[in-house]
Amino acid sequence: MTTTRVEGGQVLLPDGSVERADLLVGTETGEIVSVGDPEEVAAVEETLDASGGLVIPGLVNAHGHAAMTLLRGYADDKPLDAWLQEDVWPIEGAMTPEEIRAGTDLALVEMIRTGTTAFCDMYFHEEAVAAAVAESGLRARLAHGVVSVGKSEDGAWADLEESVEIADRLDGRAGGRITTAIAPHSLTTVGEEYLREAVSRARDLGVPLHFHANETGDEVDPIVEERGMRPLEYADDLGMLGPGDFLAHGVHVDRTEIELLAERGTAVVHCPASNMKLASGMAPVQELLDAGVSVGLGTDGAASNNDLDLFGEMRDAAMLGKLAAEDASAVPAEAVVRTATEGSAEALGIGSGRIEAGEPADLAVLDLDAAHLTPAHDLVSHLAYAARGSDVRHTVCDGRVLMRDREVLTLDERAVIDRANERAAALVERAT
Amino acid sequence: MTTTRVEGGQVLLPDGSVERADLLVGTETGEIVSVGDPEEVAAVEETLDASGGLVIPGLVNAHGHAAMTLLRGYADDKPLDAWLQEDVWPIEGAMTPEEIRAGTDLALVEMIRTGTTAFCDMYFHEEAVAAAVAESGLRARLAHGVVSVGKSEDGAWADLEESVEIADRLDGRAGGRITTAIAPHSLTTVGEEYLREAVSRARDLGVPLHFHANETGDEVDPIVEERGMRPLEYADDLGMLGPGDFLAHGVHVDRTEIELLAERGTAVVHCPASNMKLASGMAPVQELLDAGVSVGLGTDGAASNNDLDLFGEMRDAAMLGKLAAEDASAVPAEAVVRTATEGSAEALGIGSGRIEAGEPADLAVLDLDAAHLTPAHDLVSHLAYAARGSDVRHTVCDGRVLMRDREVLTLDERAVIDRANERAAALVERAT
Repeated sequence: MTTTRVEGGQVLLPDGSVERADLLVGTETGEIVSVGDPEEVAAVEETLDASGGLVIPGLVNAHGHAAMTLLRGYADDKPLDAWLQEDVWPIEGAMTPEEIRAGTDLALVEMIRTGTTAFCDMYFHEEAVAAAVAESGLRARLAHGVVSVGKSEDGAWADLEESVEIADRLDGRAGGRITTAIAPHSLTTVGEEYLREAVSRARDLGVPLHFHANETGDEVDPIVEERGMRPLEYADDLGMLGPGDFLAHGVHVDRTEIELLAERGTAVVHCPASNMKLASGMAPVQELLDAGVSVGLGTDGAASNNDLDLFGEMRDAAMLGKLAAEDASAVPAEAVVRTATEGSAEALGIGSGRIEAGEPADLAVLDLDAAHLTPAHDLVSHLAYAARGSDVRHTVCDGRVLMRDREVLTLDERAVIDRANERAAALVERAT
Repeated sequence: MTTTRVEGGQVLLPDGSVERADLLVGTETGEIVSVGDPEEVAAVEETLDASGGLVIPGLVNAHGHAAMTLLRGYADDKPLDAWLQEDVWPIEGAMTPEEIRAGTDLALVEMIRTGTTAFCDMYFHEEAVAAAVAESGLRARLAHGVVSVGKSEDGAWADLEESVEIADRLDGRAGGRITTAIAPHSLTTVGEEYLREAVSRARDLGVPLHFHANETGDEVDPIVEERGMRPLEYADDLGMLGPGDFLAHGVHVDRTEIELLAERGTAVVHCPASNMKLASGMAPVQELLDAGVSVGLGTDGAASNNDLDLFGEMRDAAMLGKLAAEDASAVPAEAVVRTATEGSAEALGIGSGRIEAGEPADLAVLDLDAAHLTPAHDLVSHLAYAARGSDVRHTVCDGRVLMRDREVLTLDERAVIDRANERAAALVERAT
């Protein structure tokens, strides 16, 4: 068995403690073989130097639209409606598979650089996304987003069929690193008949449902008015809240909905930066956690963030969680680190977000020897509040080293950046 | 005249536009000689390579407690009262001048690394802080913080005298890079008679007043109850709101207070990360700006942030400002960049935050060639939302290069980090 020894570092263990340990990683099995006393870990040829560093589970970005990196900074500081209608949708309508690939490659480089090893993508031209994921070495759950509002009936059904077809076709690709989902965009942008069909098809395929829900007040009110029930009660009636399903945002959820999520085992992916930047509101994260809801963390698309750095997202989640709860002890450091690792992995149903023998070898190694991470009173605090993606030295996914000493090994970073610049400029030129 | 040519970069100009330009900087005068067409800028021997980069005004951190870096991550996720009483105050009470120096040096390294060229410090043992500032090459406005609550009358007067003596003694040090202020801690921790005397002594010395105000609801209510007026009306009655004076936080301010600040020309230093982390609330930044109040940006101490990176603070300010205004178009990118440069410089009355001929040569040069800053639709958006301190390549203050190609030149970073680790450990050991 070929193995890599991750040596010399401290390691964040599943119980939240940090210990000096070496890791043995199976390069072919993609699993952690052992976590242990440096003396007891077998000598191997391949090593990854973690000295002066902290080994953490690879971060998991549980909600996003990867190729939106091409729109980073394109149209900020606008109200959600105007932003979507005037800027985002016209550009998205013009995007070719080549542009989706260019934007996704850019996202993957940024994720590898910032210690993210798995992510969820809800967008379109997912075949191009899958090709990028396969090459990058990351894990992903991919879904073609379905919208029926504003489409003909035929167009809407075709969109749903495409979603099902893509979910079926891509599931299991890249040696199993790619999994899929059925993704009706939201409860207000997809009509009831399509939502029902989406549920039925997802269950047939055995893939989860992923959708936006309760992001803004404007999304909640029409459902309450038309149907006399809360959005997640409506979703539950349609069978959309299953144990493997996961929804993004969950900002405007009431007590009944929180309990429903906990009972059904449906995960919420919290996207604090996007919720702030679009002035959507504050998700009640501490309440969700207290109720036993599984909470993951996502950056959302780069156009409403504007980066894909989950370290910044952990910080945002801790800070916004306190503000929402009006309590400085709410959503503490260890809770946000858990949401970005185990919580997100559980939401997506891929990876585990835990460093222990037998778990997938998805890891990031951070440099601790930096002014902004000094002194070392509490390394979990540093992960939540002071570390940033640029502190990541190595990234490992499925036992394979994707970045070593800050050099991305699986993608040609120079070419990816140049192509993204070219494609973004051409896209804006063409669409406006 | 010795000059340095900052060449090859794009430059952020005072009107918010970005242009390709070279800068000529007077090494001895400490001023920008010219900003212009690369062809027209005279050839010089000393150069600073800004190619592929963006030259911005050095960022100004207008409120903080530098040596609190020693408490970074020491006690997070606690309610404000318990945090201060159980953790912060006992440790601070034990800090020696050597520890203040060690913590300040650490803060200065972090600030230089993240493109900050001037800052405000309200703490104690300021002689040690001044020594660190002198060596580092940064600019600063320093103040000994005065508290009377919990002290004997003699003790309180002695504290005020120390503040005045220090302000007088340090003002103008380090070739004028050090200026001072009188800093009564807040309107609730300093009694009325001491506040009156602080005003009088500040006016005599010709230095501004700096104080915390309206940070939490708990700070506002007692004043309203006891005096039948808002805190800033009380401060105004005492003469604390002059044109050079500046206050930190201003979270819970009403319309009357906002108008008062605008009329008096007293600046507010917004500290969004600290306000979120301590669950203090959301300052109405867009309202303050609309009313014509001068708004600067500060990180506050590292214990409630937990870093000193003003790029993160700009992002926090934009995001929190939108949430507070319930409007995604509030506090846009250009506004937060302005608060961290011109706004903070105006609040502190040092530097200018503007790149133009005749202004102080306080600059940072960022690398733009990175995945997270691609594509280049809008560089001002990138400054606010996507850039981080680790993107800074060079830092220049007063015409002197403090960091070149990410190497800090004025302080021994290795020694500073090691000493901070040792001192922090010894301090906690001694105080607990």
